[in-house]
Amino acid sequence: MKTMISLAVASTLLMSGAALAQDGTKVEDAIKYRQSALTTLAWNFGPLGAMAKGDMDYDAEEAAMRAKRVQELAVMPWEGFIEGSLRNDGHGIETAALAKTGDNWDDFEKKQQDFEEEATKLAEVVSNDDDFAALRKQVAATSKTCKNCHDEYRAEN
Amino acid sequence: MKTMISLAVASTLLMSGAALAQDGTKVEDAIKYRQSALTTLAWNFGPLGAMAKGDMDYDAEEAAMRAKRVQELAVMPWEGFIEGSLRNDGHGIETAALAKTGDNWDDFEKKQQDFEEEATKLAEVVSNDDDFAALRKQVAATSKTCKNCHDEYRAEN
Repeated sequence: MKTMISLAVASTLLMSGAALAQDGTKVEDAIKYRQSALTTLAWNFGPLGAMAKGDMDYDAEEAAMRAKRVQELAVMPWEGFIEGSLRNDGHGIETAALAKTGDNWDDFEKKQQDFEEEATKLAEVVSNDDDFAALRKQVAATSKTCKNCHDEYRAEN
Repeated sequence: MKTMISLAVASTLLMSGAALAQDGTKVEDAIKYRQSALTTLAWNFGPLGAMAKGDMDYDAEEAAMRAKRVQELAVMPWEGFIEGSLRNDGHGIETAALAKTGDNWDDFEKKQQDFEEEATKLAEVVSNDDDFAALRKQVAATSKTCKNCHDEYRAEN
């Protein structure tokens, strides 16, 4: 579980004199941060999903912009999963991050990496080719890595 | 006020059949999105501010990573300021975005651009030089553009 706390977060917590991931406010900040990063990600992925499904007209420029942002954002949420910030950790803050995430940390990190890799390919596919079929395929591959992690570690309610 | 609605947002709204920026749920999504993007931004700017103030040890690698993220995120929040989403617009959602933002849209956009420019310089300064003095100066310049906009258009309560 040591890897749950990035150096950055540790530094942020230490500089404020707060207990490391045991201070209620800081756990709240970390949860709010990861939820915010994931919301920002979902908003930007939305138009790509809509284009892939045919719910939105394909626009190569828009697709490239969204894919670039998805790639940039893909690495950001994870440092918010600090120790003591999962469900049932006693912090009293609403979070969908299941307690079993902590018991399967290596797998959780593997799933993050899978997503980051597919998001990187997505940005490459979209910027290199004005190719709707390739976009569609890679949007599906990326989306699958989101689902793989959500199915396992995100609460449904 | 037409420029308040980006094509992306318009498309997202249209694809779901929602009224353009007049549907309560969609206004809520836009508000939640911009707040999320700004929270993600603030979290990543935090360590840079702390390093500049001496509250956190200077770490060139950490600074470069944070500055890159700040630059990437700097362009994201603004599309969330859709028409009908400011304070007193009758949507009933908590937002600090003052109504006068809509009356001074050109100035609001100018302030966004000022911030984006300083954030770009920040990423350049940090990645080109392992130079704490330059970082400190550019963190202050970037922070000033945040404050310029907050002082004018963000509610204090």
